[in-house]
Amino acid sequence: MERLPGFRDFYPEPLPDAEAWSSSARRYIFEKWRSVATRYGFVEYDGPPIEPLELYTLKSGDEIVAQLYNFLDKGNRAVALRPELTPTLARMIAAHARNYKKPLKWFSMPQLFRYERQQKGRLREHFQFNADIVGEQGPGAEAELIALAIDTLRSFGLGSDDFVIRLSSRAAWQEFFIKNGGKPEDEYQFYQAIDKLERETEDANREKLKKLGFSLEQVYDFIKKAEPVDGLQAIIENLRARGLSEFVKIDYGVIRGLAYYTGMVLEAFDKKGEFRAIAGGGRYDNLVKLISKGKVDIPALGFGMGDVVLCELLKERKLLPQFKQTIDVYFCIEYESLRLESLSLIQKVRDSSYTVEYPLSSARYDKQFKRAVELDATWFIKLEKNSSGKIVAMVKNTRNREERAITPDEILNLLKPIPKNGII
Amino acid sequence: MERLPGFRDFYPEPLPDAEAWSSSARRYIFEKWRSVATRYGFVEYDGPPIEPLELYTLKSGDEIVAQLYNFLDKGNRAVALRPELTPTLARMIAAHARNYKKPLKWFSMPQLFRYERQQKGRLREHFQFNADIVGEQGPGAEAELIALAIDTLRSFGLGSDDFVIRLSSRAAWQEFFIKNGGKPEDEYQFYQAIDKLERETEDANREKLKKLGFSLEQVYDFIKKAEPVDGLQAIIENLRARGLSEFVKIDYGVIRGLAYYTGMVLEAFDKKGEFRAIAGGGRYDNLVKLISKGKVDIPALGFGMGDVVLCELLKERKLLPQFKQTIDVYFCIEYESLRLESLSLIQKVRDSSYTVEYPLSSARYDKQFKRAVELDATWFIKLEKNSSGKIVAMVKNTRNREERAITPDEILNLLKPIPKNGII
Repeated sequence: MERLPGFRDFYPEPLPDAEAWSSSARRYIFEKWRSVATRYGFVEYDGPPIEPLELYTLKSGDEIVAQLYNFLDKGNRAVALRPELTPTLARMIAAHARNYKKPLKWFSMPQLFRYERQQKGRLREHFQFNADIVGEQGPGAEAELIALAIDTLRSFGLGSDDFVIRLSSRAAWQEFFIKNGGKPEDEYQFYQAIDKLERETEDANREKLKKLGFSLEQVYDFIKKAEPVDGLQAIIENLRARGLSEFVKIDYGVIRGLAYYTGMVLEAFDKKGEFRAIAGGGRYDNLVKLISKGKVDIPALGFGMGDVVLCELLKERKLLPQFKQTIDVYFCIEYESLRLESLSLIQKVRDSSYTVEYPLSSARYDKQFKRAVELDATWFIKLEKNSSGKIVAMVKNTRNREERAITPDEILNLLKPIPKNGII
Repeated sequence: MERLPGFRDFYPEPLPDAEAWSSSARRYIFEKWRSVATRYGFVEYDGPPIEPLELYTLKSGDEIVAQLYNFLDKGNRAVALRPELTPTLARMIAAHARNYKKPLKWFSMPQLFRYERQQKGRLREHFQFNADIVGEQGPGAEAELIALAIDTLRSFGLGSDDFVIRLSSRAAWQEFFIKNGGKPEDEYQFYQAIDKLERETEDANREKLKKLGFSLEQVYDFIKKAEPVDGLQAIIENLRARGLSEFVKIDYGVIRGLAYYTGMVLEAFDKKGEFRAIAGGGRYDNLVKLISKGKVDIPALGFGMGDVVLCELLKERKLLPQFKQTIDVYFCIEYESLRLESLSLIQKVRDSSYTVEYPLSSARYDKQFKRAVELDATWFIKLEKNSSGKIVAMVKNTRNREERAITPDEILNLLKPIPKNGII
C-alpha cells in the first residue's frame, strides 16, 4: 500500500533514503518560525483543516475549485481541505475582532492542500508559516511584516546573497489597469496574466494580454518605470532604519495571483532564481469585510512561507543541520536478575528529566554497548553484584571516559546538573 | 460565515469566550507529550492527513466507512481523512522497517477525523498523542508503553486519584469467544458488543450477545473472574518495579473496538468516571503484515491519547495553567521624530533574542504604557533628546522599578543576561 501522490511521510533519523522527508527537519523549521514570530510579538492561532467551500469561492470565484480538495461531507455540506489560511483568519477575526487590542499580530503554521498537476518539487500539501497584522493602516505594519519575513529567513542562516524580497503594489497595478481602459470583469484575469509573466513564453503572455486589451510592451514599460507609490518608499525607509534595506527591492514584476490584495504585495525569491517563491503576501484590506458580509471592516496584511521550497533551498545551501537521535543515559541490563532493580532506577532517572534508553528484553552486552554508542549516550550505567552480594552501579561518563562504582542511590547526584536533554 | 460543526478554532489569549479553544493550551499539551516521549527514547514521525480509503477498510471492513470523511479526489482515487494513525504507521514501517534498529519507539501527534453524530464533548476532529513500539515481542514492551502513558498523564499534574489504566487481554477474549462456540464471522461484532457493555442498557447488551450465541451472565462471569493471562502478570510486575503499579488494574471489561488487536489492550479513565476514555491501545502483531500484504511481519503495540478529553479533564481538575502573552521589552515611541532611531535599536534588541513590542504607528504615551503593562514587559524603553540635543535611552526595569538614562549603545549591556523569553 502506497501513500497518495504529492503527500509526504515524515520519518525519524536515520532517513531511509535520500528522497525521504525528515520529521526532525520539519520540527527544526517549525521551531525557527515560532521563535522568530514570538520575538516579534506575534501570537499563535489555528483553524480547522477543512472549511466550507464557500469560504474560498466567495472572492476567488468558482475557478479556484479546480485546484481544491473539495467534496460533499456526509451531512451534504460542500467542504474543502484548506488551500490557504487567510480566509480562515478573516473568518476568525470577523467573529471575535472586538475581543483583541488592535493591531493584532498573529501567526500560524498550517498544513495546506492543493490538487495540482504533479510536477517536480510541487507537492499537493505543504506547511506554511503565516504571519498577519490586522487593524493597522500605515506602512509601519508593512515594514514590521517584511522585517519578520527577512529575520525568519536569516534565522536559518540565509543572507542577502541568498534571497531578496521583491516589493510591488497591487494598488498601482489596479490604477494602471483602470487608466488604460481595463474592464472590471477582466481585472482578476489581468492580475493572473501579470503574475505568470515570468513563467510563460513571450507569445503566450502577449496573446493573453491582447485579449484583455493590453500590449505586452505597455506592461513591460510600466514594470520598468516602477514609480514607487502607495507608501512603498516609507516601507523601504523604515526597513533601512532597521539595517534591512539590502534584503528588499521594488519590482513591479510581482503582483500575486490571489484576488484579494489591495495594497503592497511581496514575494521572496532565492537570488540565483533556482526555486519557486519562498514567501508571498500583501495587504488585503477588504477581505474581513467580505467574509463577514459587511459586519466587520478592518484592514489587514500578511505573508505565507512554505516549508517545501524553504527546505529545498536550505538543503542546496547546506544550511540544514545534521539531525540525529541522542540520549542522556543508556541503562545497560547485563544480568536479567537485576532487571527489576534496573527498572526502578530507570524510572527515577527519567523522573529527573533525563532521556533514558535500555533493552526492553534480554540482550547481549556488546549489542547494548553498541546501541549506547549509536545513541551518543552521555552516561552508560549498569548494575552489578559485588563479591559481598551488594548491588553496585557502574557509571561511565562517555565524554571523559571516567568510570565509577557507586551505590544505586547516588546515581542522581552523580548525573547532576541535568545535561542538555536529548531532543533531536 | 461559520466554521464546520465539530471543528475547532484555536484562538490566542485572551480567549474571546468560555467556549473558545486556546492555542496556548494546545501548545502546552503538545510540549508535554513531546517531552515525555523524548525522555522515554521515542522519536517523532508523521504521515499525510489523507490516505487511500483502502488503508482503513482493509482490516475494519466497509462498516468503518460510515464514520469516515471519505471522498473521490480529482484523480478518482477513493481517499479518506485519517481517523487514526496506526494504519499509516504500519504502512510506513512496512516500507522501511529494515532501515531501523529494532525495537522502534516512535511517537506522533496527528490531527484525526471522524464523521460522527454530534454529541456534547464529541468533536469531529481531535489531536492524538500516538506512541508505538515495533519489533518487540515480550511484555517489557507493554510495560514500557504503559509507563509512558502513565508518566505523560503525571506530567500534567494528574495522580493516581485522578486516573487509572485498565488492562485487559484481547487474546483472552478471543479464547473465550472460540471456546464458547462463537462463529469466526461474528468475532468483530462480538468485540464491538463487549466494547459497548458499559455504555448501553442491560437489555440492549443482552439482546446483542444473544444474537451472537452468548448470554450476558456468561460474559459478566468471565469479566469477574478475570484470570490474568497473556503476560499481564509480568506487565504488572514490571510496572511495580517502577513504582507505577498503583496506576493500573486488570479489568476484562475493556476489550477495545478496533479489529486489529491481538494481545494486551488498555484504556485509561478518570477515576470519577465522568469522561470518556483518556487513552486506549494495545498490541497488534498482525497489522503490519496485513498492510504490507504479507511482505513484512513484525510485532507491534501502541496507544493513542486524545487532546479533547485530556483538556476537559485538566480543566475540571484546575490543572491547566493560566496562559498569557508576555514580552521582554516594550519600546515606547513617544516622539515620532525618533521613530527611525527607535527602529534601529528595536532590531538590535530582537537580534539578541528578546521579544520586543512597540507601536506600529503614532500612539499616545499613556496608551503605550498601558499596553506595556498588559504585556507584562520586563523592560520599558524610550528614546528622548536631552537638553543638549543628544539622544538618550530611558530604560526602566518594571520588576524592580529602577530607571536609568543611558546612551542607546548601552541598552544591550543593561538587558543582559537574556531573560526567560516571552513565549507563552
